[in-house]
Amino acid sequence: MVSKKQISLAEFRKLTERYSNWSRWGRDDQRGTLNYNTPQTIRSARSEIRSGKTFSLAIPLDNKGPQRGLFGRFNPILLMTRDGGDAIIGAYSADWLGGEEKETRSADEVIVMPTQCATHWDSLAHIIHRDVMYNGRSAAEISSTGAKANGIFASRGGIVGRGVLLDIPRSRRRNHLAPGEGISSDWLEETAERQSVRVREGDIVMVRTGHMAAARARGDWGDYAGGPAPGLSLDALEWISKKKVAAVASDTWGIEVQPFEVKEVHIPFHVAAIVYMGLTLGEIFELDPLASDCAKDGRYSFFLSAQPLPFTKGVASPINPIAIK
Amino acid sequence: MVSKKQISLAEFRKLTERYSNWSRWGRDDQRGTLNYNTPQTIRSARSEIRSGKTFSLAIPLDNKGPQRGLFGRFNPILLMTRDGGDAIIGAYSADWLGGEEKETRSADEVIVMPTQCATHWDSLAHIIHRDVMYNGRSAAEISSTGAKANGIFASRGGIVGRGVLLDIPRSRRRNHLAPGEGISSDWLEETAERQSVRVREGDIVMVRTGHMAAARARGDWGDYAGGPAPGLSLDALEWISKKKVAAVASDTWGIEVQPFEVKEVHIPFHVAAIVYMGLTLGEIFELDPLASDCAKDGRYSFFLSAQPLPFTKGVASPINPIAIK
Amino acid sequence: MVSKKQISLAEFRKLTERYSNWSRWGRDDQRGTLNYNTPQTIRSARSEIRSGKTFSLAIPLDNKGPQRGLFGRFNPILLMTRDGGDAIIGAYSADWLGGEEKETRSADEVIVMPTQCATHWDSLAHIIHRDVMYNGRSAAEISSTGAKANGIFASRGGIVGRGVLLDIPRSRRRNHLAPGEGISSDWLEETAERQSVRVREGDIVMVRTGHMAAARARGDWGDYAGGPAPGLSLDALEWISKKKVAAVASDTWGIEVQPFEVKEVHIPFHVAAIVYMGLTLGEIFELDPLASDCAKDGRYSFFLSAQPLPFTKGVASPINPIAIK
Amino acid sequence: MVSKKQISLAEFRKLTERYSNWSRWGRDDQRGTLNYNTPQTIRSARSEIRSGKTFSLAIPLDNKGPQRGLFGRFNPILLMTRDGGDAIIGAYSADWLGGEEKETRSADEVIVMPTQCATHWDSLAHIIHRDVMYNGRSAAEISSTGAKANGIFASRGGIVGRGVLLDIPRSRRRNHLAPGEGISSDWLEETAERQSVRVREGDIVMVRTGHMAAARARGDWGDYAGGPAPGLSLDALEWISKKKVAAVASDTWGIEVQPFEVKEVHIPFHVAAIVYMGLTLGEIFELDPLASDCAKDGRYSFFLSAQPLPFTKGVASPINPIAIK
Repeated sequence: MVSKKQISLAEFRKLTERYSNWSRWGRDDQRGTLNYNTPQTIRSARSEIRSGKTFSLAIPLDNKGPQRGLFGRFNPILLMTRDGGDAIIGAYSADWLGGEEKETRSADEVIVMPTQCATHWDSLAHIIHRDVMYNGRSAAEISSTGAKANGIFASRGGIVGRGVLLDIPRSRRRNHLAPGEGISSDWLEETAERQSVRVREGDIVMVRTGHMAAARARGDWGDYAGGPAPGLSLDALEWISKKKVAAVASDTWGIEVQPFEVKEVHIPFHVAAIVYMGLTLGEIFELDPLASDCAKDGRYSFFLSAQPLPFTKGVASPINPIAIK
Repeated sequence: MVSKKQISLAEFRKLTERYSNWSRWGRDDQRGTLNYNTPQTIRSARSEIRSGKTFSLAIPLDNKGPQRGLFGRFNPILLMTRDGGDAIIGAYSADWLGGEEKETRSADEVIVMPTQCATHWDSLAHIIHRDVMYNGRSAAEISSTGAKANGIFASRGGIVGRGVLLDIPRSRRRNHLAPGEGISSDWLEETAERQSVRVREGDIVMVRTGHMAAARARGDWGDYAGGPAPGLSLDALEWISKKKVAAVASDTWGIEVQPFEVKEVHIPFHVAAIVYMGLTLGEIFELDPLASDCAKDGRYSFFLSAQPLPFTKGVASPINPIAIK
Repeated sequence: MVSKKQISLAEFRKLTERYSNWSRWGRDDQRGTLNYNTPQTIRSARSEIRSGKTFSLAIPLDNKGPQRGLFGRFNPILLMTRDGGDAIIGAYSADWLGGEEKETRSADEVIVMPTQCATHWDSLAHIIHRDVMYNGRSAAEISSTGAKANGIFASRGGIVGRGVLLDIPRSRRRNHLAPGEGISSDWLEETAERQSVRVREGDIVMVRTGHMAAARARGDWGDYAGGPAPGLSLDALEWISKKKVAAVASDTWGIEVQPFEVKEVHIPFHVAAIVYMGLTLGEIFELDPLASDCAKDGRYSFFLSAQPLPFTKGVASPINPIAIK
Repeated sequence: MVSKKQISLAEFRKLTERYSNWSRWGRDDQRGTLNYNTPQTIRSARSEIRSGKTFSLAIPLDNKGPQRGLFGRFNPILLMTRDGGDAIIGAYSADWLGGEEKETRSADEVIVMPTQCATHWDSLAHIIHRDVMYNGRSAAEISSTGAKANGIFASRGGIVGRGVLLDIPRSRRRNHLAPGEGISSDWLEETAERQSVRVREGDIVMVRTGHMAAARARGDWGDYAGGPAPGLSLDALEWISKKKVAAVASDTWGIEVQPFEVKEVHIPFHVAAIVYMGLTLGEIFELDPLASDCAKDGRYSFFLSAQPLPFTKGVASPINPIAIK
């Protein structure tokens, strides 16, 4: 069920061809599999709202996050520009209020953060393979001012609809998968069956590995941000492709199994999924409270609202996905 | 219908008492009127989803935004830490990939932005009146590291449910209201009636003034960020209070009418609404495409998903509210 | 004396060849004309220190600076991470001090700024001409992580020595030069003569145009950051080359005359000076108080200490040049 | 020679009184002991320049610095806004150059850094004791917008003059002092004598502990940023006071010995030195190459140029101190 086997570069090339969606939605398409997410799938997802109970799938945004410097990423830095201390010491009235005003004070702040430092979507401009992006766009379209194509802005009107949680460890009576364990198509299907949930075209699928829960149990993020991890195997692409899901997310830093499955290609699942399939990927999702609730009521589908912030040339966006059951 | 009249400080004091919700939801409450937004209201809001068509109510996040420096605010600054140029010039492989890797490259970025520079929610920690916040919490709970109480984190599990748009200028056959025009309770009620929409407890109400449309028509934000503007009058608190709405947003920079209605108190509507009523306020909402659609189909209610990012000590959050019809 | 004439692209090509210092100090050199600045020139500069009086040649670093958004530049943003308000409201003790400590508090801050937003040196990695930098290095050596060659780090041990001020408008009994007025070699020489100062090999030469004084007199930076300006003409390269100066700075945003002198090449003086000559350029220098003092005592030379901050891969650095007379 | 003994709170109170310089240079003074640094001391320091050889006393500014998150500090973050990749891929011309320009490209960057993250001066606004700063100024003068008094701006015209290095471990034939070893007045005097250097009024004194060298030898900063360290003892204040030095710096993160010498007062040396004596303190100075050279030629004095950047309301500044021998 778990594929730890290595895949050759030649096999990888075939695989990227097999799952490629280039031109499927037109030569100018920048949304990839989010095209499966239509007004119709959103409309039918409304029936998932039954109790109205909500779950935030985002980890808290502060300096206690998982980043340890890899890729130059760091945890969010919040810097106050006006605060309660200013109010009490009478420090800022003259700066922006009339001289006589003695009543109103306000608090304001600036945030400095990598867009991928916490719970986020990777847009289709996040990964470049041999100098091209999804749909054959040149890497030259991503300059120091950001991405002119395939960026997160293309999905600003979504990403909402039916969400499905596949809780791999729970379905196998384990606490969490181990680093290096790759999740295959068979395993995804088996979990769906055991959970009695049917995955439909346009769904947003969340795959729980328990890797975040393990870090939490440890009381330390450790090498969560970039170290060996369980995650999606290249083998999972078959299931993802057949199911026509709109996006896939997980509770790990990098969604795919690490160590990687192709010697010559780093983050090969990202390459195949983002560059060729055009699949939007979600990372560092907090799935544990939702998973507990699903285990309790036996219902693993829900309405999901996980829209990104509309950075016009951004390659990713921090998000706060809300699951509504 | 439009109140430009000034209110005395004594009247203002009475008004803050009348509309105060302190202790209404317990002494430790930090969510204020968001308490009207319950699983039940969310559940019943699902019927608003009919066609599945979505509308993003956020303005684009880039350096073309409205900020001009007031309060030290500036437009979002996006800074790439890895980009397509790096890929093409072969610049960064050695930094984080194994020496032999020749295939995969990625793009990443850092964002620097005031949380209130574009479309956002003001949390209940945003405003301080005479050294206290909502529910009597001391301003001392907001230090340089952020807000320990009443902050945006308290609403991380929401703000979703039934949304209602009140398009004031359209209901009065005008393009937009003028700076200085205050929106009264009567006017809100009249607009709802003309639009044949009933506002219910727990709704999130968006009030369109046309002020953003006017800036767009001008082709220049001008003094949009902080200048005179149409907006909610203190008189509107009666209607808001009676209707028990969960949150109110608008298409202006500061939601309330400017010049202000109380000589001695700056942003008096913010004070009464946030500090006393505990009302979460939304600003710089892009309401025009949604408003056009509502005018076309005559339906001014919809499902709204406008959850904030979970900054643990933040006083506000940029958002991308999604309206689903 | 003032060259407003246009230079053809062919002439410009010849000029860049004529003044090129590529390989002059070795194929690996990254310091260019700073090589003229030697222990010997520094040693002999000590005699310039006579009264011990000092002048800061930097403009203040705050949000009142000249930047208006060109090239994505903005004025410095200072954000406090601990302040006096925190101390007074008792907010932060528990965060980093032992629970019982009641005595000591501290203030700390973060700075966000473009390195070229105020008084600064441009390193030899600042300008790229037809994909190459100074000494023939490829532009590919400047990626998203900064410059691997020709950057500001190469001059971290300097830039100190003898400074000379050439006050062009004062020597011509004018308040300031006009936008578009280009400073020629003749004019530089004439000013030195009128000021009775001899420019020596290794000197750091500051050329005053009065353009900053004009902005100050106006009470508004206006288009100082990027608009038409007086400044060095391409003709000045002859004098600079012959004199073997180590670096040249001025009181304008871009040191060179604007509008530019070559139709096909933007900032042509930067190209010829930085890319070919290897000349470190200083911009937005505050020269007025120093100039007044020089006019008073008739002495236009001094000891100058204008070392950059050692950003390892930076292309520029903010500085506070100190002139000692 | 090394004082590890604890000092009582009562003794500490006496000590702050004894060494207080409040009002010594007037009630409005904001420069403290920098007042000892006069045109005369600068003038006489010129004779220290003999060979013209320079030493940068700053550590490199990049993400390999010592910060590990204490006090919310982090290492410098350099973010390119235009780079060589942009030039090569032809990405940014249209943004700011005329459509036809094909020749000139440039590189630019933004820096995000705490002012105290690397080599820096602490201004007299850095420390607050029982709600007051140096010269009795209220902590209320330091709000979220920075310090209105005692800040780094007050020393923008300096800090240059005669520098003296006291190499404590070398004078005692040790590689480095151990964490917890406090440097006393006796030890400072003894080292000066062994080095045959006379410390004069207005000097800037650098005290080497070897603690940075130890980290370098280890190949890891470890707990350099905030852990136990050798450093100045409260006992050293007597010598510093008598010598009338202008400023004191060291090669440790916090200049003073840690663990601290007063149970009830954190960073007690900072309190006594900055708040009461008005002594500007330098931290994270790179003293090793200079120390080697001094050991070689037996000369421990030099000209020093260590001016701060002129942040108008800053409490500290990163610096690149240049020693000239």
